Amino acid sequence: MGRKPVEYSEASPAVLAVFDDIKSSRKVDDVNNFWKQLAYDPVTLKRTWESVKEVMAPGALDPLTKELIYLAVSVSNGCAYCIASHTAAARKAGMTDAMFGEVMAITGMANETNRLANGYRVPIDPAFDR
Amino acid sequence: MGRKPVEYSEASPAVLAVFDDIKSSRKVDDVNNFWKQLAYDPVTLKRTWESVKEVMAPGALDPLTKELIYLAVSVSNGCAYCIASHTAAARKAGMTDAMFGEVMAITGMANETNRLANGYRVPIDPAFDR
Amino acid sequence: MGRKPVEYSEASPAVLAVFDDIKSSRKVDDVNNFWKQLAYDPVTLKRTWESVKEVMAPGALDPLTKELIYLAVSVSNGCAYCIASHTAAARKAGMTDAMFGEVMAITGMANETNRLANGYRVPIDPAFDR
Amino acid sequence: MGRKPVEYSEASPAVLAVFDDIKSSRKVDDVNNFWKQLAYDPVTLKRTWESVKEVMAPGALDPLTKELIYLAVSVSNGCAYCIASHTAAARKAGMTDAMFGEVMAITGMANETNRLANGYRVPIDPAFDR
Amino acid sequence: MGRKPVEYSEASPAVLAVFDDIKSSRKVDDVNNFWKQLAYDPVTLKRTWESVKEVMAPGALDPLTKELIYLAVSVSNGCAYCIASHTAAARKAGMTDAMFGEVMAITGMANETNRLANGYRVPIDPAFDR
Amino acid sequence: MGRKPVEYSEASPAVLAVFDDIKSSRKVDDVNNFWKQLAYDPVTLKRTWESVKEVMAPGALDPLTKELIYLAVSVSNGCAYCIASHTAAARKAGMTDAMFGEVMAITGMANETNRLANGYRVPIDPAFDR
Repeated sequence: MGRKPVEYSEASPAVLAVFDDIKSSRKVDDVNNFWKQLAYDPVTLKRTWESVKEVMAPGALDPLTKELIYLAVSVSNGCAYCIASHTAAARKAGMTDAMFGEVMAITGMANETNRLANGYRVPIDPAFDR
Repeated sequence: MGRKPVEYSEASPAVLAVFDDIKSSRKVDDVNNFWKQLAYDPVTLKRTWESVKEVMAPGALDPLTKELIYLAVSVSNGCAYCIASHTAAARKAGMTDAMFGEVMAITGMANETNRLANGYRVPIDPAFDR
Repeated sequence: MGRKPVEYSEASPAVLAVFDDIKSSRKVDDVNNFWKQLAYDPVTLKRTWESVKEVMAPGALDPLTKELIYLAVSVSNGCAYCIASHTAAARKAGMTDAMFGEVMAITGMANETNRLANGYRVPIDPAFDR
Repeated sequence: MGRKPVEYSEASPAVLAVFDDIKSSRKVDDVNNFWKQLAYDPVTLKRTWESVKEVMAPGALDPLTKELIYLAVSVSNGCAYCIASHTAAARKAGMTDAMFGEVMAITGMANETNRLANGYRVPIDPAFDR
Repeated sequence: MGRKPVEYSEASPAVLAVFDDIKSSRKVDDVNNFWKQLAYDPVTLKRTWESVKEVMAPGALDPLTKELIYLAVSVSNGCAYCIASHTAAARKAGMTDAMFGEVMAITGMANETNRLANGYRVPIDPAFDR
Repeated sequence: MGRKPVEYSEASPAVLAVFDDIKSSRKVDDVNNFWKQLAYDPVTLKRTWESVKEVMAPGALDPLTKELIYLAVSVSNGCAYCIASHTAAARKAGMTDAMFGEVMAITGMANETNRLANGYRVPIDPAFDR
């Protein structure tokens, strides 16, 4: 465990402003522990939240697809906190059990073939290398 | 570079059967170098192809979404061959420049927040841990 | 959990010699669990301790800078034990809260841009490639 | 190789504004290929540059220490582009040959002990777990 | 924690068929939690089991050697579940304490020299590049 | 590319002593590029060589098994130099084409199941957790 989370009641105005934006943007009653830890560094808290908000906003990809990609990367990296929080976020965005199973299968398979490509030292096909 | 790729003209019947299935399934004239290297081990070639075919078939997720996830994981892992081949595959499945940009942004952001969560040793919120 | 740690009272002379050197070098009353586990393999215990002692000794870089680098790599790799132990070691060497925040921010940002460079397949600038 | 870099002469106003800020902040005549690739996604270009600028500005840690940490993480992750560019950046910030050797030694040792801690499943010492 | 494991008494016929094959192939009374979780996706359960069974069968390498390699990779990746389960599997296949120590030492050393090779940007010797 | 390799004719006595020990221990006419790069830091060169020599010496595991494990970890980590050099070393120690195929298959499969275990958040079986 790291330090104790920074709670709303003890947050500085700079932290509160971010917490409030997270709560209103996500329509939640409280922020999750990730933000309560980053609150120890208000500059990183603000930059990270604004970056996440920008990256995860609907764009060429819809919010569910974005969450599935975020989850796949977190699973591949083995970050226990991120797997838990982004599984929850993806479910909230509409991920079904069947979708979860397929994201895991793809993540597993990509990790396998990534190593086969490494180990066999496969030269990049000219058709791909542009 | 690894060994020279196994070409169609020199492939064993077991390898040819897989090559032919790849070519007809993907409607391509030739298989890419990854398969020509795995051909050195026909058992791994067959298992890997059949696994990839099963995992990447349309299901709860459409083929484009599946390719985007595969690409994100390959980028996160830094596999140069896989990044090149799956960028090409994703483009063929419909990935636009805007989608590519968003997949990269999510992959980068997930890698960043995964480390922030690690370093701050964020405890998993009870609401996530089910 | 792995096996139970090897305690001072039950250590062989070869293990004791290393434990004693750790305790006197670091001016601590007991060695931490990492060494009590490596004690199951006295050859690895001795080699690892002597290597760590050599690498972390003051040199062109001061001990605090060295600990910050060690922590950043451990966070990037997601090793929970190492994050806990090297956070403590860095604090003991003088890491302030502000420094901790900056090390985390850099580690996160490096992980993000590493993936952006991978995914965009950025060619190395001739000016760098020497 | 990815797409051809976006050069100054063909950049949009949004991209030019970032390029100009990089050039004046770093006192360089041209931006390196990383930014010329990110220019394909001006939103990511701007966010990434502003984040890097904020994170790498002098603070509790000096610019050289920050570059050494960035380099160590990039080496640990095996990002060839990032290793080349951040080796150059660290040298520019004052990294000597001796410092380079020590950063590499620490990065290597941390990767080794991270795996020993994983494999021996070392329990976190109560003294660290706060 | 993820979802509750799928137990034998509540498994579908497709899942039961895999569970029974695992139990008879491995001569165990119950399957371990990994399979009880994959049971949420019977297609992935079946493909993964059949792939593992094929890959881990005696071949040019004996079962113990195969388990040692599986363990080394799992330790290198920092997967806590996999380290625990493959340590147990390797012990069952004959891994002694001395062998365990050597696998850990090699895994640690490879992780160290992998980073030294990255950081020093060592060019591949012509003699190796075939 | 990094700096130019340190050749025998320009090496310091401290470097020469290590080069000579590598050549006589391995019965080779020249050292490979990895050592010629580490020669920029004679302390790291000596420590790394002595550590590798100790770890890879015959023990409870034979030299071929040790090389297979080293190769598997290097492939899993995606270190191009290390994959090339340790494929060559393993072949010299007796690795056949069939063994190579099996090492790759295990490395790929371990990477896949490591991620499935991460993503499904599989709780460690009590029987394993000792």
